[in-house]
Amino acid sequence: MAASIPRRRLTKDARRAELLRAGEEVFSDRPFEEVSIDAIATAAGISKNLLYHYFAGKRELYLAVIAESTERMLEASEPDLSLAPLERLAASLDAHLDYAEEHSKGYIAMMRGAGWDDDVLAIMRSAQDRVVERTLAVLPFPDGAPPEVALALRGWLGMVDYLTLHWLEHQRSMPKARVRELMVELFVSVVTAAANVGARP
Amino acid sequence: MAASIPRRRLTKDARRAELLRAGEEVFSDRPFEEVSIDAIATAAGISKNLLYHYFAGKRELYLAVIAESTERMLEASEPDLSLAPLERLAASLDAHLDYAEEHSKGYIAMMRGAGWDDDVLAIMRSAQDRVVERTLAVLPFPDGAPPEVALALRGWLGMVDYLTLHWLEHQRSMPKARVRELMVELFVSVVTAAANVGARP
Repeated sequence: MAASIPRRRLTKDARRAELLRAGEEVFSDRPFEEVSIDAIATAAGISKNLLYHYFAGKRELYLAVIAESTERMLEASEPDLSLAPLERLAASLDAHLDYAEEHSKGYIAMMRGAGWDDDVLAIMRSAQDRVVERTLAVLPFPDGAPPEVALALRGWLGMVDYLTLHWLEHQRSMPKARVRELMVELFVSVVTAAANVGARP
Repeated sequence: MAASIPRRRLTKDARRAELLRAGEEVFSDRPFEEVSIDAIATAAGISKNLLYHYFAGKRELYLAVIAESTERMLEASEPDLSLAPLERLAASLDAHLDYAEEHSKGYIAMMRGAGWDDDVLAIMRSAQDRVVERTLAVLPFPDGAPPEVALALRGWLGMVDYLTLHWLEHQRSMPKARVRELMVELFVSVVTAAANVGARP
């Protein structure tokens, strides 16, 4: 009741969101094994008991953090269908780069940590599937895109992640607009090249 | 002296090579944490003590395995300068795909395990630097390639790894020759697109 403990008055959803933010913060700093539930509770300013009310354990919270931030990333880069195709792509990539820049520590940690963890990999692959799907849907292949295009598109997404990571890690050595321009050109050329290969017998 | 203990008669280099092969085998099967020195010694058919004669510990052996297999991969795909540029590239990629196919478990494990391990990442980045260097050296940029090309080339290498991994993991759903053809086309289109962006003011 008293206003003197304002943190206690958060709604369940707001509290959960706060825990996810604290988790992102702590998990971005060090490998999963070195993170303690106490550190996350402290970062969120709540007790360990209250944390367990929301997440069954460290692992559950960790996967929820990854799922949440992947979801926000997908939403941020959701294509604006009112734009022309290439402007739409450019706008999505701008949003992607802005998001990665704002959450650079988390982005770097997630990209580097995905390797051995099957659950994290599954989250990231499912996000990738959605991006591939929404991209193929607007490409001009009336009879469906050849498998080479779908594969190259996944390769291009890998390039986008790679270029983003490289850009973040190298003190943003190239202007953001230039990185985005490069990504757009690479998209066009990669899809075109793959379509050419796919059209061959 | 007796021929009844033939394994003991290996030279130091041959023994080391055998240990690296055993290490590759064991480390490919499970995460680093779950591998024991005993398992490697058993796989190599030697005593743990003899293993320690060659490597200071599990970590040293692990990194030596990665370095060795990266080196063999680089050698296998060393460009044959007597070929025309695109044939040379195709031959390198054939060798790369053959190598990855023959060592698929190790290749998959290495690719997935690199994320959090700074030493492994350093080995792989240094190998990547050498590939980028040897590729840039033969590209037609008399005044040096623009930074966009070097960056896109790294992105293309990432695509090659991605396509290789995808091909290995999906039961080789696309013929090897087609995957290689796609990689060559992607190379040409990626370098061209990046050169175009780099030529802009």
